[in-house]
Amino acid sequence: MKLYDDPMSGNGYKVRLLLSHLGLSYQYIPIDILRGESRTEAFLQKNLNGRIPVLELDDGSHLAESNAILYFLSQGTEYWPAERYTQAQVMQWLFFEQYSHEPNIATPRFWLKTGILDDTPFNTELLTQKQRAGNQALAVMNQHLASHTFFVSERYSIADIALYAYTHVAGEGGFELSQYPAVVAWLQRVREQPRHITIDHWSAATPP
Amino acid sequence: MKLYDDPMSGNGYKVRLLLSHLGLSYQYIPIDILRGESRTEAFLQKNLNGRIPVLELDDGSHLAESNAILYFLSQGTEYWPAERYTQAQVMQWLFFEQYSHEPNIATPRFWLKTGILDDTPFNTELLTQKQRAGNQALAVMNQHLASHTFFVSERYSIADIALYAYTHVAGEGGFELSQYPAVVAWLQRVREQPRHITIDHWSAATPP
Repeated sequence: MKLYDDPMSGNGYKVRLLLSHLGLSYQYIPIDILRGESRTEAFLQKNLNGRIPVLELDDGSHLAESNAILYFLSQGTEYWPAERYTQAQVMQWLFFEQYSHEPNIATPRFWLKTGILDDTPFNTELLTQKQRAGNQALAVMNQHLASHTFFVSERYSIADIALYAYTHVAGEGGFELSQYPAVVAWLQRVREQPRHITIDHWSAATPP
Repeated sequence: MKLYDDPMSGNGYKVRLLLSHLGLSYQYIPIDILRGESRTEAFLQKNLNGRIPVLELDDGSHLAESNAILYFLSQGTEYWPAERYTQAQVMQWLFFEQYSHEPNIATPRFWLKTGILDDTPFNTELLTQKQRAGNQALAVMNQHLASHTFFVSERYSIADIALYAYTHVAGEGGFELSQYPAVVAWLQRVREQPRHITIDHWSAATPP
């Protein structure tokens, strides 16, 4: 397997974290999105939508969208539940992550970390709106986690992996995680899972 | 089963369309999101994130996020493929829909249809940016559909249902679908599926 990914991406980190849990080896191919490397003709052959991460299987086929890759890799493992309604609850949190969480937490982090956002009135207001919506998403998580150890069925699953990726670095997007104590406690439970790796762990061809 | 939904929602329509294909009966409970009915204490008990649609099962449990509901209802039916990689491809398009498509096509439609967006410079620029991104999503779909009859494995699946919902009414968001001929041809193929219903078909307790 090959993973095309930008090392600073939390979406890529989700996949790297699950691959580490599963003890699967893969070739890591860094793609610099700021230099347009995900928009080249060659890359668009792998994902028409021009986004990382992309997983390349040994038969040469490709899969895009981080949470779809998590779904693919987790089938038949302990990170994906067996029962239909429970599976659908994992899906519910994966879609919450991509719709209500990631656009509002990952995007401010990307802007503030790279400094690519010009200081126009439009951008300042857009950042403010995203941070407000991001705080709403964190409040939803905090309320759920006040009475749950993990997002679904009290077991660590790809729902936790997906939500951990950008939540634990939300401070880089201007969020104050200490306002969400149940989230902070859950972050620690995620870090205690076997074969956990940090977001900057990406250079090794084989996970630890 | 009960479906809590705003009749104007394309996300709710996805679920109604699949329920119709499957011939499943359900109770339809209209929720007026403009009047704040998805933010009441009673509704937040069903979905902490305060959004429709929400499916209520006969045992009283709930499921939110339209594409998670599609996943749940389609298991074991012809609308969900059997093979793992093919399933993951369906997932890829479902996440494309919620990340790259819906926020940029459904949101302009909602703003223009309801007239709730004040004509400030910020809102005008935000609408322009979303329409630009929405056109990019339509271009990705058009390129894919130029060589495929349906999104995955040449078979109608929940990926088509999810993408049809807001694409076929994109004109209401200021998009010009005739620029995407492969999309237009696919819309017709979707409409020809057995037990297809239109987006305004929601009042009946039992699908046709």
